[in-house]
Amino acid sequence: MGDPEQVKVGIIGASGYGGVQLVRLLHDHPKVELVYIGGDSSAGKSYSDLYPHIGHLVDLTVEKIDLDAIADRCEVVFLGLPNGLACDMAPTLIEKGCKVLDLSADYRFENLETYSAWYKKERHDRAIAATAVYGLPELYRDRIRESDLIGCPGCYCTASLLGIAPLLKQGLIVPETAIIDAKSGTSGGGRQARTHLLLAEADNTLTAYSVAAHRHTPEIEQVCSDLAGHDMMVQFTPHLIPMVRGILATIYATLRDPGLVREDLITIYNAFYRSSPFVRVLPNGIYPQTKWAVGTNLCYIGVEVDVRTDRVIVMSAIDNLIKGQSGQAVQCLNIMMGWEELLGLPQLGFYP
Amino acid sequence: MGDPEQVKVGIIGASGYGGVQLVRLLHDHPKVELVYIGGDSSAGKSYSDLYPHIGHLVDLTVEKIDLDAIADRCEVVFLGLPNGLACDMAPTLIEKGCKVLDLSADYRFENLETYSAWYKKERHDRAIAATAVYGLPELYRDRIRESDLIGCPGCYCTASLLGIAPLLKQGLIVPETAIIDAKSGTSGGGRQARTHLLLAEADNTLTAYSVAAHRHTPEIEQVCSDLAGHDMMVQFTPHLIPMVRGILATIYATLRDPGLVREDLITIYNAFYRSSPFVRVLPNGIYPQTKWAVGTNLCYIGVEVDVRTDRVIVMSAIDNLIKGQSGQAVQCLNIMMGWEELLGLPQLGFYP
Amino acid sequence: MGDPEQVKVGIIGASGYGGVQLVRLLHDHPKVELVYIGGDSSAGKSYSDLYPHIGHLVDLTVEKIDLDAIADRCEVVFLGLPNGLACDMAPTLIEKGCKVLDLSADYRFENLETYSAWYKKERHDRAIAATAVYGLPELYRDRIRESDLIGCPGCYCTASLLGIAPLLKQGLIVPETAIIDAKSGTSGGGRQARTHLLLAEADNTLTAYSVAAHRHTPEIEQVCSDLAGHDMMVQFTPHLIPMVRGILATIYATLRDPGLVREDLITIYNAFYRSSPFVRVLPNGIYPQTKWAVGTNLCYIGVEVDVRTDRVIVMSAIDNLIKGQSGQAVQCLNIMMGWEELLGLPQLGFYP
Amino acid sequence: MGDPEQVKVGIIGASGYGGVQLVRLLHDHPKVELVYIGGDSSAGKSYSDLYPHIGHLVDLTVEKIDLDAIADRCEVVFLGLPNGLACDMAPTLIEKGCKVLDLSADYRFENLETYSAWYKKERHDRAIAATAVYGLPELYRDRIRESDLIGCPGCYCTASLLGIAPLLKQGLIVPETAIIDAKSGTSGGGRQARTHLLLAEADNTLTAYSVAAHRHTPEIEQVCSDLAGHDMMVQFTPHLIPMVRGILATIYATLRDPGLVREDLITIYNAFYRSSPFVRVLPNGIYPQTKWAVGTNLCYIGVEVDVRTDRVIVMSAIDNLIKGQSGQAVQCLNIMMGWEELLGLPQLGFYP
Repeated sequence: MGDPEQVKVGIIGASGYGGVQLVRLLHDHPKVELVYIGGDSSAGKSYSDLYPHIGHLVDLTVEKIDLDAIADRCEVVFLGLPNGLACDMAPTLIEKGCKVLDLSADYRFENLETYSAWYKKERHDRAIAATAVYGLPELYRDRIRESDLIGCPGCYCTASLLGIAPLLKQGLIVPETAIIDAKSGTSGGGRQARTHLLLAEADNTLTAYSVAAHRHTPEIEQVCSDLAGHDMMVQFTPHLIPMVRGILATIYATLRDPGLVREDLITIYNAFYRSSPFVRVLPNGIYPQTKWAVGTNLCYIGVEVDVRTDRVIVMSAIDNLIKGQSGQAVQCLNIMMGWEELLGLPQLGFYP
Repeated sequence: MGDPEQVKVGIIGASGYGGVQLVRLLHDHPKVELVYIGGDSSAGKSYSDLYPHIGHLVDLTVEKIDLDAIADRCEVVFLGLPNGLACDMAPTLIEKGCKVLDLSADYRFENLETYSAWYKKERHDRAIAATAVYGLPELYRDRIRESDLIGCPGCYCTASLLGIAPLLKQGLIVPETAIIDAKSGTSGGGRQARTHLLLAEADNTLTAYSVAAHRHTPEIEQVCSDLAGHDMMVQFTPHLIPMVRGILATIYATLRDPGLVREDLITIYNAFYRSSPFVRVLPNGIYPQTKWAVGTNLCYIGVEVDVRTDRVIVMSAIDNLIKGQSGQAVQCLNIMMGWEELLGLPQLGFYP
Repeated sequence: MGDPEQVKVGIIGASGYGGVQLVRLLHDHPKVELVYIGGDSSAGKSYSDLYPHIGHLVDLTVEKIDLDAIADRCEVVFLGLPNGLACDMAPTLIEKGCKVLDLSADYRFENLETYSAWYKKERHDRAIAATAVYGLPELYRDRIRESDLIGCPGCYCTASLLGIAPLLKQGLIVPETAIIDAKSGTSGGGRQARTHLLLAEADNTLTAYSVAAHRHTPEIEQVCSDLAGHDMMVQFTPHLIPMVRGILATIYATLRDPGLVREDLITIYNAFYRSSPFVRVLPNGIYPQTKWAVGTNLCYIGVEVDVRTDRVIVMSAIDNLIKGQSGQAVQCLNIMMGWEELLGLPQLGFYP
Repeated sequence: MGDPEQVKVGIIGASGYGGVQLVRLLHDHPKVELVYIGGDSSAGKSYSDLYPHIGHLVDLTVEKIDLDAIADRCEVVFLGLPNGLACDMAPTLIEKGCKVLDLSADYRFENLETYSAWYKKERHDRAIAATAVYGLPELYRDRIRESDLIGCPGCYCTASLLGIAPLLKQGLIVPETAIIDAKSGTSGGGRQARTHLLLAEADNTLTAYSVAAHRHTPEIEQVCSDLAGHDMMVQFTPHLIPMVRGILATIYATLRDPGLVREDLITIYNAFYRSSPFVRVLPNGIYPQTKWAVGTNLCYIGVEVDVRTDRVIVMSAIDNLIKGQSGQAVQCLNIMMGWEELLGLPQLGFYP
C-alpha cells in the first residue's frame, strides 16, 4: 500500500464540511495518496470519530500541526482552516518546497489592505502573498499552472464570477448595473454549532443576511474589475435557503446593446467556456437547478434576456462544497500537476 | 347553531390550499358563518374527505355550483377558482346582491386587454369589471370600503408591492432601476399533482422560473405605475424555494437622492404604514424571515441602504397563503363590512 | 391595559421553543395577562431581542429571577427551565400561594429515586413533590383540578400515552409486548446550538438515538403501570426526523383477544376519549399525519389491527411544542382554574 | 467510441428515479457501455429532455420497445418498468440470449400465486420464472452467479432483510416477535405526479401508510422464512419521511437467549457479513444515519440489546435508489459477469 507513483498530499484542517469533501475526493483520486490530516483541536482522534460513515475507507488519525513534519511527508498541502491562519503557515510550507492550496480567504486578495480591512488581520507575508494565484481555473488556468500557492475562491464568488465573467470580459453590460442576488444552502455556514443554523430555526424559512456588507463582495469586485479592465462595484446580497447544499446566483445587468438576444448570449457563453469542461451552458429557456450540480464539480449556467427592460438575467448553480470549495481545489491541483483537469472529479449528480 | 348576527358566507372553490386556509380563517372569525362550500369536481363529498384533519370542526358537504342558490344563502361569496372562471360567475352574484371577493386574477386588472393577453381569456363583463377594486388594503383601503367586488392580489404581488410602495409613492427611487428578486415556497403552485412540485424534485434544490415572463409582472407594474404616477416597468424574477409556505421579495432600486440613509427610509416606511396594522417595519439592521410571517396575516419589511452603490434594498416577507391570499381576502371583507380590520386574523406566528 | 378580571401569570425560563410558544398562547388567552418573564442568562434584554417577530405584541423585558417578587406579581407561574432547577424554586412559589406548572421533568415522577437515577439530581423537596400531579388531562383531569403543582409530561410521553392508554386501561393487550417507535422533529432538542441539530446535519437524514436508554422511558412506564394496574415495561425508541415540529408514535402490541377487529377498537377509543376535546380518534383506515396537529393542541389517533399477527398498531400524532409542552400546560391551567378546557388553545392546524 | 471489451447493456424503462440512477451508474461503470434506452411513453425524446442535467454526458434517444432489436444490440438488459410488465418481456429476452435484471416485483416471488394475489396479475411464464433468482447478493450470491434472470428486491426489503438476516439464520430470535418499523424518503414513491407526494403535502410531516397491508410484506416474509427454515410472519409498517432519499428500518425482536449482549451480536453480524463489502456493521453504540448511505451502495447496520426487555433492536440504513434499487442491480450484474463485486459502485457518501 502506498503506490510510489501517487503524489503524497496532506490536509491541515479537515474537520469541517469542506474538509470531509476534500478527504472523499482525494480518496477517490487516482493520482494522489492522502497521507496526513492535521488539526489542533481534534489531534489524536481517529478521523472516523468525526465522520463515522467514512471509517471503512479512511483510516487516518488527526495529527498535531507540525509544519516541518508535514513538509517532509507531503508534496502538496491543502489548508482548510478558519480565515487568518493559513497566512501564518503557507510561507513555511512553500519555503520547504510544498505546493499549497488554501481554502480560506487569506490568499484571495491582490491588495492585502483590502484583506486586512475585511478580515481584521495584519499581514506579514507580502512576498509570498504576491506569488499567490486566485484559484478559479476557468479564468486563471494559465497562472494556476505556474504557481505553487493557490488562494481558492469563496463559494459565492465562484457561482457569481462564472455567471458574470463573459459579460464583463466582452464588455456587454453597463458594469455599475450589476446586481447579484445569491442563495445558499446552510452548509456554507460550516459545522460549528450556531443557533441560527439549527434545523429548527433555518428550515421552512428564508432570509437575506449581511446585506450590503458581505465579505465576499470585495473578492467578487476584485475579479470583476480585472475582467472589466477598470474598477467596478457590484451589488451582492446573500440569502440563506432551507437546504443543505447548493448555491444559485441570479445576476441582473443592463445590456449595452439592446439588440442582443438570448441566442447571441448563449453563443457567447459557449465560446467563452469552450475549454472549461466543468461549466455547462444550458440551452434556450432551460434554467439551472442547484440539485443538478450537487455532488459534482459542475457549474450550470442559464441565460435569459428581457427585451422589455434591456436586461440580461444569468443564473449560475454550483455545489457550494465541491465546485465552491473542495472540488475546485482538486481541479487546481490537477492543473498545477499537469494532469487532466477532470481527473477524480464527479461530473454527474445523483439526481434526485 | 347559526347566530343570527353572523353574516352568512360561502366559498366557491375551496379544494386548494387557499381554500382550506379560508375555511379555517372563516371558521375562527367571530362575525361570519360559513354556510356553503361549492365545487364541481368534488361536489357531493364531505369537505373532510379532502382535508381529514378538519373534520371535527367543519361539517360541510361540497355542493354543486348553483349561483341562484348560493346568492339566496350567502351575503358574501369568496371565489377560489382557477383563473378565467370567476368572471363568468361574479356578474350574476353581484346582480343578486352578493358581495364578491375573487382570489383569482380575473378582477385584478384595470385594463382587460392586459388580462386577456396574459391569461388567454376574452372578457364579456366589462361593466362589472369596471367596479372591481384591487384588494390590497394598505394601498386601496378607501376604495375597498365602497366596493362590492374585490380582485384580491396575487401572492408575489402583495409581498412586492408592500415592499416597494413607499419608495414609489414618495418618488424616492429611479423607477426603471427597480428589480424584484422573489422567492416562494411550493404551496404557491397549488395542490394539483405536478411533477416539478413533488418533494423528491423540489426539495434540496432551488431554481428560477418564468424569468422575464411571469404573469404577476403586469399586475405589479399596474400598481407600481399607479403609485409612481406614470407608466413604469419592473424586473420581476420568481424562484421556487424548498419550503411549504412563505414569500420573500428582495427589492433593489437606485435612490434619487444618494444622501438618504437607512434611518430616513425606516422613518418614511413607518409613516407610510402607520395605519396599517398588518405591516411591521423592522428596526435598523433587522431583516425579515418568512417564518416570522407564516401562519399570520402580517408583512414584515426590512430596509437597507448601500451607501457605496446608492441603492436601497428592501426585503418583504409574507405567508403566501394568508397575507398573500386568504387572509388578505378576509382583511378586505372586514373593511367592506365596516368591521375592525384585524378581526379574525392571526397576528403572531407559531415560531419555530 | 391590565384587565382586573384577568389572572396575572409569569414564566420563568422563556427563551426556548417551549417558552416562545407559551408566550404566544398566553398572549392570545382571554383570561390571563402575562406580566412577567424571568431568566438569568438573558435578564435585562427585551424579549423581542430573542424573538424579533413578536415585538409588536409582546413588550416585556426579561427580568432576573426573584421568587419573592414573582410571587407578589403572579398568581400562576410556569417554569420552563432545564431539568433540575424547578425543584429548587417550586416549593417557595407554592408556599407563597402561587399555582405552579412545571414543564421540566422535576415533578413528573411519583418515585423520586427513579427521577434521581435518570436525572442525576438529589431531591430535598419530598413533601411538595408528593402533592404534584402528572399534567396529562386526558388521564388525570380530576387530580389536576385539585392541585397547585403540575408536572407537565414530556412530548414523547404525551403522544405515547394517549395512544396506548385505552389498550392498557381496558386490559386489551399483553403488556410486555408493547413497543413504541417514536419519531420527532428536531425542535424537541431545543434552541441550544448543538452540531447534530444543525440543518446541514439533520436535514435529509434519519436516525434512532438513545436506543434502549431514553429518559422518557421510565416516565412512560410509570403511567402505563398505573393504567395497567401493575408494573410493566415498554420498549421505547426515539428517532430524529428532518422536520421542525411534530411527533408520531407508532405503537405495537399483541391483542389478548384475537377476535377484536379495528372497528371494535375505534369504538373503545372513542368512548375512552369522549370527554377529551383535544383527542381526535380517526375513522377506519385513516392514519394521522403530524402536520394535521402542528399549530394546535390536538392529538390525532389512528388505530389498525393486523388480523394475521393479532397485533394492534396505534399511531398518535401531536405538535411536540403545543400538546407536547406549552399547550398542555395551558390546558392544565384551564382545568385548575375551572375554566373551559378549550380556552385559548388552537384546534385547527394551518395545513399545509 | 464503443470499447470492444465493454459489455453492451440496455435499459427498458429509464424515465423514473431508479432509471436515472441506473443510467448514471452504468455511465461510470468501467466494463459496460450503455447503448440503448427504451420506453413507450417517451419514445423519440432525447433522454436529456427528461433529465437536462445529464445531457453533457449521456447522449441517447429513448427508443420504442422492440425486443428483437434490443436483444440484437444488448448482452444485458435492465427492466425498470411498473409491476406486471417485465414478465411479458423477460421470457423473449432470455430466449434470445440476454441476461435480464428486473427491478420490478415480477421475478421476486418463488410462489407465483403470492405474486398474483398481491399484484393482481396472472402469470404465464412459469418455466422462466422458476429460473429467476432473488437479487440480494449478501444472501444469494452463489445463485446469482449462475443465473440469467434476476428479480431485484424492493427497497424496503433490502434494508429489512440485511438487518434481520443474521438473527434468523443463526436462530437467535423468537421469529413471531419480529417487528419492522420502516421509514422512507419520498423518492420511493416514484416520479409520477401524485398529490400526497407534493412537497407542500409531504414536507414537515410524517405518517404511516399501508399499515398491515404493504406489498413488501410477503416479499420480506418469503426470504425470512427461507432464512429461518420455516414459514414465519413479520409485522411491517412503512412510514413516509420528509426527505428525498434513504430508508431506515428499525427492527425489534425478542432474543431466544437473554444472555446475549450487544458485543456478541456485533461479532455475529461482522462474521455474517465478512465477505459482503457493501455492508458496514457499526461499532458499539453507533447507530446509522440514512445520510451516510445516500449516494452509495452501502448498508449501514447498528445493533443494540435492551437487557431489561430481552429484545434486540437493529437499525439498517440504505439509499433506497441505489442499494435499494439501481446499485443493487449493478452489484448483481458484477456477480453474474464474474467481475469484482465493488466495480463501478460508490462507497463513500457525499456527507453532509
